[in-house]
Parts: sequence; structure tokens; C-alpha cells
Amino acid sequence: MAQVRVVLCRPSHPGNIGSAARAMKSMGFTDLRLVAPEKFPAKEAEWMATNAGDVLERTTIHATLEEAIADCTAAYALSARPREWSPQVLDVRTAALDAAKQPGPVAFVFGNEQSGLTNEEVMACQFLVHIPASADFSSLNLSHAVQVVAYELLMAGHPQVPKGLEQKLATSADREGLYAHLNEAAIRSGFLVPETGSKLPERLRRLFSRVPLLEREEVNILRGLLKALLK
Amino acid sequence: MAQVRVVLCRPSHPGNIGSAARAMKSMGFTDLRLVAPEKFPAKEAEWMATNAGDVLERTTIHATLEEAIADCTAAYALSARPREWSPQVLDVRTAALDAAKQPGPVAFVFGNEQSGLTNEEVMACQFLVHIPASADFSSLNLSHAVQVVAYELLMAGHPQVPKGLEQKLATSADREGLYAHLNEAAIRSGFLVPETGSKLPERLRRLFSRVPLLEREEVNILRGLLKALLK
Repeated sequence: MAQVRVVLCRPSHPGNIGSAARAMKSMGFTDLRLVAPEKFPAKEAEWMATNAGDVLERTTIHATLEEAIADCTAAYALSARPREWSPQVLDVRTAALDAAKQPGPVAFVFGNEQSGLTNEEVMACQFLVHIPASADFSSLNLSHAVQVVAYELLMAGHPQVPKGLEQKLATSADREGLYAHLNEAAIRSGFLVPETGSKLPERLRRLFSRVPLLEREEVNILRGLLKALLK
Repeated sequence: MAQVRVVLCRPSHPGNIGSAARAMKSMGFTDLRLVAPEKFPAKEAEWMATNAGDVLERTTIHATLEEAIADCTAAYALSARPREWSPQVLDVRTAALDAAKQPGPVAFVFGNEQSGLTNEEVMACQFLVHIPASADFSSLNLSHAVQVVAYELLMAGHPQVPKGLEQKLATSADREGLYAHLNEAAIRSGFLVPETGSKLPERLRRLFSRVPLLEREEVNILRGLLKALLK
């Protein structure tokens, strides 16, 4: 089983942070990361965490999602609604099975209680994950969504991962470097005219986020080629 | 799918009743029954239910579990701990699949937040159901347990199939065109010196062959970028 991080982006209610910590711990996960929480630490979080106070004590706070997932080799964005432009879409069971096969750390990323994730946050991840739900009322409470994800991750089990592959995998930071380089190449070659609403950056991101177990060396090869072409 | 009733025995916190109602509704279930609740109706229940107020309005109150499940042909008792004497033990996924096959109404029965179900309540059911959880800390919040059960019931009734992908996939010829173009770009930019035994062409081929369901349009985007860069 890959190491699992749960990332909550801009949570409004500290009680939900505590409930999420408890939900995680009940399934054996303890690495909780918060991006710009409205209020944390907070008494309400401690109350709702019950015996998962140790998870809250180790919870880290980050300014941006990019920072929170920088060390992850795969990031899964939860969303109740489809997006016009998004990474590959998986249901939560498939996503958990996929995550269980990842040799490096993975992040499951949840949005704000009211507004969810921004499109930028979704595009920083490689997968868009939905929890199958009623068509009439698909709104799960934040910590309940964390519970279902953590449960499916536990159910997905503990498969063996090829040893030594973890060090070789591209991290989110490596991927962002590639996307920035592709963008630069597209603009400097005239293939992309900035500020025309082109979906080229999203299309490229979507393409490379589908490569399973993308390696750092592969990112470096592509960037080397781009560098040579730009000379 | 059988009709599903959720039965909460002696719940202490009305907030949990509201959260359970929301959890049920998010998965398409609306029949909530309470056995001797400490406090209901209650404002806290309404707050936590958010848009599942209609479930609360229809919630029925019963003096005993026997009364609450009298019309059910199968009853599943949730328990975090094993019992010396119990009905057949199932994990929640198996229980949901079993329930989905029942022709009559089924009940999923949850105990009090602190003490769980009594042995008598367990023995009034035909199955004992456990939610797989961490060995160190297996205590789910009541409404979170309802969420996992409701989620598994939805999954059992409507197995999710990966969304039909109606895309124009790249053919082998499209892929070969891309590889040839990449090679040309690598040679003309000086990144690849021919006949030096470089593994670059194989590396690039290996990378792009791992993209599942590569689309023709994506190949065209990459080739458009290469063409612009080579100008």
C-alpha cells in the first residue's frame, strides 16, 4: 500500500477537520494536510476528532495545494460535479485500487465544503475522482467523503509494489516543471498564443497525467528535448 | 434493489441523526427509523441534515427494535466488535451484495454511539455486519458508519462501470507518425545523435505507449507543437 496523504483545501469548519482525522484514523491513515484552513488549530477540531488527536497534532498547514502535494507521485482530486476540462475521471473504488498500486506517496485532495475544488486545484492532480451517489442529492459532508475514500483505500488492500521504483517516480513538482516547460515551448514557438483561452495547457496536462508511473528520468528526457528545440 | 431501512437504536446525539439522514439521502435512501432516541425531533438534527430534511420529516419512532424491523425480511446488525454468540458474520461489502438480492425490505441496524447494540438487539437480526477498519482504532462515528453502509448498498445495487469513452483513438499509424516526428525533432535539434546507440527513441516510445486510450487529437497536438518548434 502506498503512503496516503489526505489534503483538505480551504476547509471552513474546524469540526470537519476533526471528523476527517477520525475517519482517516479509523481506516489506518494518519497523514493529514491542510491548505489555507479558515481556522486551525481549533477546539471544535479536537472535539470531533475524539481519539484521533494524534492525527491532528501531526497535521501540517500549507499555503498552496502545490506545496501540500509536492512530494506525491499521484494526486486524486475529489469532485461531485463533472468538469469540462479535467484529468482522467475515476470512481472512488477504481481510484483506490489504482492508488494502492502506486509505489510512491499518493494524495487524495478534497475541496471546500461549499465550493469544492477550484479548476486550478483539479488540474494540479492527475485524476478526478467521484463518489457514486444519488442523482437527486449527491452532496456528501466533507468528512463523510473522507470516510468513504479511506474505507475504499483500506479495502484496496496491501498489494506488493516493485522495490526501488518509488525513488524513480516523478513527483508533482517534477510534473509541474514539465508543464511549465511545455507551455514555454508552445508560446516561444508560436504554437500557443497566450490569453486567447486556448485549452492547450490543459490538454497537455491531461495527456501526461494519464501516463501510469511516470518516471523522473522520462520527464527529464522530454525537458531535454524541449531545451534542445528551443535553442 | 431491495427497499432499505436504516434503524438507529437509542441514539444519544440528535446531530448524528441528522448526519445519518444526509448520509442516507446522498446514496438514495430515505427510510430512517429510530428506536427510543434520547432527543428527537431536535434542532441539531435539522442543522446536520442540511438538505435531507425530508428524510427527517418521514422518520418514524419506535419503542423497540422488534417493532422497527417487523416488516423486514432480513435485518443486518452493525457491530465493531465480535460477539461470542451472533448470527452469521459478514463484512459490509458482502452484506450489501446480499441485501441487494433480498426480495423484501431489509434493515441495517446501528447501535448507540457509546455502547453499540445489545446482544438481544444483535440476536433480533439475521446477520452481524462489520466495517473493515484499523486494528488500532476501529471506532467510526455513527453517521460515518451509516455513510459507508449506504455507499456499499448503492454500489451493490448499481455497479459502476467506467464511463463509456467515445473518443477517436489514435491508431498504430498515428502513433508511428508521432514517433517519427519526435525522432526528427530530436535529431534536428541535436538532442539525439544518430547511430550512437542511444536508447532515446525506445524511451519515448515506451513513455507514449503507456498512455491509455491515447487520442488522435492528442497526437496531433504534440505534432503541432513539434512542427512549430522545428520552424
